[in-house]
Amino acid sequence: MPLLPDIHGPADVKKLPPEQLPELAAEIRERIIRVTSENGGHIGPNLGVVELTLALHRVFDTPADNLVFDVSHQGYVHKLLTGRNDAAFDRLRQTGGYSGFLNRSESPHDAFGAGHAGTALSAALGMATARDLRDSPEHVVAVLGDAALTCGVTLEALNNIASATRRLIVILNDNEWSIDKNVGAISDYLNHLITTRIYNRTQREIGNVLRNVPGGGRLIALGSRVKRDTKDFLTPRASLFEKFQLRYIGPIDGHNIEQLTHYLEFCKRSPQPVLLHLRTIKGKGCEVALKNPEKFHGCAPFQIATGDPKPAARADTPPAWQEVFGTTLVKCARADPRILGVTAAMASGTSLHHMRRELPRQYFDVGIAEEHAVVFAAGLATKGYKPVCAIYSTFLQRAYDMIMHDVCLQNLDVTFCMDRAGLSPNDGATHHGLFDIAFLRHIPRALIMQPKDEDELADMVRTAIAHPGPAFVRYPRGAAPGVPVKETPALLPIGKAQVLKPGGEIQLWALGPMVDDARALAARLESDFPGIAAGVVNARYAKPLDAELLLEHARSARLIVTLEDHAVAGGFGSAVMELLQENHHAIPVERVGWPDEFIEHGTTPGELRAAHKLDPGSIGERVSRRYAALAAS
Amino acid sequence: MPLLPDIHGPADVKKLPPEQLPELAAEIRERIIRVTSENGGHIGPNLGVVELTLALHRVFDTPADNLVFDVSHQGYVHKLLTGRNDAAFDRLRQTGGYSGFLNRSESPHDAFGAGHAGTALSAALGMATARDLRDSPEHVVAVLGDAALTCGVTLEALNNIASATRRLIVILNDNEWSIDKNVGAISDYLNHLITTRIYNRTQREIGNVLRNVPGGGRLIALGSRVKRDTKDFLTPRASLFEKFQLRYIGPIDGHNIEQLTHYLEFCKRSPQPVLLHLRTIKGKGCEVALKNPEKFHGCAPFQIATGDPKPAARADTPPAWQEVFGTTLVKCARADPRILGVTAAMASGTSLHHMRRELPRQYFDVGIAEEHAVVFAAGLATKGYKPVCAIYSTFLQRAYDMIMHDVCLQNLDVTFCMDRAGLSPNDGATHHGLFDIAFLRHIPRALIMQPKDEDELADMVRTAIAHPGPAFVRYPRGAAPGVPVKETPALLPIGKAQVLKPGGEIQLWALGPMVDDARALAARLESDFPGIAAGVVNARYAKPLDAELLLEHARSARLIVTLEDHAVAGGFGSAVMELLQENHHAIPVERVGWPDEFIEHGTTPGELRAAHKLDPGSIGERVSRRYAALAAS
Repeated sequence: MPLLPDIHGPADVKKLPPEQLPELAAEIRERIIRVTSENGGHIGPNLGVVELTLALHRVFDTPADNLVFDVSHQGYVHKLLTGRNDAAFDRLRQTGGYSGFLNRSESPHDAFGAGHAGTALSAALGMATARDLRDSPEHVVAVLGDAALTCGVTLEALNNIASATRRLIVILNDNEWSIDKNVGAISDYLNHLITTRIYNRTQREIGNVLRNVPGGGRLIALGSRVKRDTKDFLTPRASLFEKFQLRYIGPIDGHNIEQLTHYLEFCKRSPQPVLLHLRTIKGKGCEVALKNPEKFHGCAPFQIATGDPKPAARADTPPAWQEVFGTTLVKCARADPRILGVTAAMASGTSLHHMRRELPRQYFDVGIAEEHAVVFAAGLATKGYKPVCAIYSTFLQRAYDMIMHDVCLQNLDVTFCMDRAGLSPNDGATHHGLFDIAFLRHIPRALIMQPKDEDELADMVRTAIAHPGPAFVRYPRGAAPGVPVKETPALLPIGKAQVLKPGGEIQLWALGPMVDDARALAARLESDFPGIAAGVVNARYAKPLDAELLLEHARSARLIVTLEDHAVAGGFGSAVMELLQENHHAIPVERVGWPDEFIEHGTTPGELRAAHKLDPGSIGERVSRRYAALAAS
Repeated sequence: MPLLPDIHGPADVKKLPPEQLPELAAEIRERIIRVTSENGGHIGPNLGVVELTLALHRVFDTPADNLVFDVSHQGYVHKLLTGRNDAAFDRLRQTGGYSGFLNRSESPHDAFGAGHAGTALSAALGMATARDLRDSPEHVVAVLGDAALTCGVTLEALNNIASATRRLIVILNDNEWSIDKNVGAISDYLNHLITTRIYNRTQREIGNVLRNVPGGGRLIALGSRVKRDTKDFLTPRASLFEKFQLRYIGPIDGHNIEQLTHYLEFCKRSPQPVLLHLRTIKGKGCEVALKNPEKFHGCAPFQIATGDPKPAARADTPPAWQEVFGTTLVKCARADPRILGVTAAMASGTSLHHMRRELPRQYFDVGIAEEHAVVFAAGLATKGYKPVCAIYSTFLQRAYDMIMHDVCLQNLDVTFCMDRAGLSPNDGATHHGLFDIAFLRHIPRALIMQPKDEDELADMVRTAIAHPGPAFVRYPRGAAPGVPVKETPALLPIGKAQVLKPGGEIQLWALGPMVDDARALAARLESDFPGIAAGVVNARYAKPLDAELLLEHARSARLIVTLEDHAVAGGFGSAVMELLQENHHAIPVERVGWPDEFIEHGTTPGELRAAHKLDPGSIGERVSRRYAALAAS
């Protein structure tokens, strides 16, 4: 009899006899492997926390107690244990299914949502402080990966714990990986803790607690053994966390549920903030994920036996946008050693792994530390280098101040290549890159571009690097249109758009792949209004705009339409209106883009576009209606 | 004979015999006290680094060597020693004078500009990496205050040093203060290092180096004494920085030039990154600054003998905007214990010191850690509290991602009170708050307000707190207009503007104190175009706009003018145009606000406005011209 179908909430997890837990863990792994093999998802991180999540739900009582998962892509097990093992879990990360992240509106057991790394400790500290203020009994537990310790915000929170609360439990889930292999001094230090066992002054106290806990005897024996093994190691090695006035316990095996349970019971009783350091194995229980933890951190649908992509995924024959970026960058950097690649723990996601392999001296991974990445790049630029920061659009939000204060204000020659600009459909609201034009275009000196296809992407990468100031190139997730890419990328003129189809009454200004939508829209408008001409412009630049062409259109057209895969508030279309009004052209502008709301996850861009009336049919209808009204007036 | 007039650059500093350095230090202090007493400025931090800066310029050769000062408000001494002891120094922070911060365009000796805290280590690491790549010999030195160690970006850089370079010198200038007294575990730890002297394994090596340096003998004796005093202290206390693979030296007296020089010589030769921990005294050499380090961190013009404000500054009888905010918050929080105040090391700057004094349990200072402050507040809000983050507009840029990802996406009830929205004239480009509407208004669910006077500020603080989601209130630096403030603040209707003067052909929509400009403009337009009526609207909200009133005006007026103390790109006026076009009103909109460039420092807002054609005369001329063209068409 399978056990998982009878788990409807944490109470059911607590009812199981301990000897059945490994069986339940195996069923959870099977369920997660099956669902992620169909839908894609964060398989590796979830397989690594099965036992931890079971132990958490045996020891703590959500939603009264608060579990805060950092990034929260490792929350699938938690979802299965908190009443979400249903059909919506089969549709995980698909339209109508559960989110791939925790979400406060999905379940009261989700104390805090996330998608970006590093926020769990701060959020948990806020909750613990609130708990202390009202003097209520619940526990607050933050679960962090070791990579979160490279994030500035985590370290800010670490510095603040001791002055904020006496009761906080931090679980450090250490698997040595962020998405790529971890880097930095803290990561070295954690490895050091693991490879040379350390003296732990809390062992005796743990023993005292465990004596009063059912089954604690075995643990005491284990504790004594650890202590015996390490008694000569009265070293300062464990002191990093103690500097932050956290009691440190560990490292312990994160796959031993019994041991975990007992240590968590101890943490519950700790009279000071405590950090429990677990060793876990990313991808545990799935052979293909174990073999390739980088690829199976988050993955597309795959065949369980081989780990190969599903045929459907393979049918995407054109290269991904980021692949073209990665190979173009290598091409440019080989010719000019001043060109350097900088990533914030995303070598494979951004395709900067090409630089790592081909030109390792010109490649830098600074950890999940976007702020540092950008100022580090600014420092490189002051010495005549030409750094290229490859950071997802949504993660670059972290470095907004540094882009303003360190790069653009000083007019330093840093290029930003923003992957995942536009929708990231399966991931949803925390990952869509729908705001970058709005948070960048008001920054003086910023140059912002988006290519309509991968050949133009290569041109723009070259152009942005050649431009002697800050430049931003945005491009979407997934497969490019599949046009041939020139051997040598061209230098594009700065601030010049490209007329793809001449027009008359209507001019369609499209940014990036929205050019295809503009072509379809032009055809529809010309059929709806026989005799008129609808032009199509590949805008190329969101800043600076091609003022000459735009003003020419303002004088000749009755309607200008802007199309962008970006929020309409403060976006490209808004910039077009600003330029027109600054030049005293108050002509009708219809802006097509994402509405002023957070966009959920969905199976495909097409489904999400349809749900928000951004499918070609809806766009056509809207623009046609506006033009009809103008023509009638 | 005074020495300072003959210092035209670092070479002159090096030429002086060591025994004259204290005399030069005294002259520098006198010069800085005199200039800051006239102009205001960061007196305390600069008086603390006189000896350090002299020692740096004796040991290192700028601009070949790179000195990176964190925040760089402590750069006055450096300016005086690098050829800037001239009339422009007399006009420090005034129109035409030197900037109060380092600035790459001001001098080649300014390796990196700053104004926000925490970026020096990252920038220096970038420079050191560039130096290593081209295998050149120069030294890179980062000078940080201890408060910088509460900033996430500094900690991200600290984690990255060891993997990036073998040669970097970090000077930790520890005076226990940020602007307010420092907080957090690292600050506790530094105090611990200072109060219990520690064993320093580098002492012997320092001795070896010093033997080869002129005058090193005395230092060796000193080193031996330190070692003798501390030989029983084989403790892990010094290990925080060693965990980051930095060699730690210190603490040493930061006011002993000879000792500083020798330790810096040692650092130059270190085969691994090294951190030199100095103890300095903020405000040293100025009695009034020593007595009140918080007030004399950065100050307005003052009388040297008493420390009292100059009569001119005292003439500002109305209370400062932030004063009204601070007292209103106490009033609200006294009535509702769910209301909490959160500051990032700016209790006095933001006036949150009223909360600290009156309601200490409801007050939280998290250190210079804006990212953590915002997520911490989000965590508080999940438990039913109503946190108010008081953060300057420009510093809130640091937390853009957290505002988006942690607060607005989860629709949490956090209020942001943004001081210094608009110009911060003496500080300049790094401190003006001219971008907050642009970086906030595209975030779904954000409510953004600005009051026209201090009575309305109190209403808005109450309204923002009462609003059950994210809300932002922006208000400028300096004295409010001086209107009476009601005893009990009113709740304002959400998204409703206030008609101050009915209009006809022209409608002027003004945000905040620009309402005064709008009144003057209305008078001018009615005089330029007899018979027309120019209305004045106190917009109150940048988001959501009062759609009903705006659309009514769109139907009845020929020209809408928007006025904001904010960048025009992506700002309030841009939002007005968006709403109009979404409702198919392509009517002329003239937007008044700051142009798309970084605005320099200046003596007064009036001078800066005039320099950028934003003085009432220029605005009147521009709008009048636009209306004339419309009337003629």
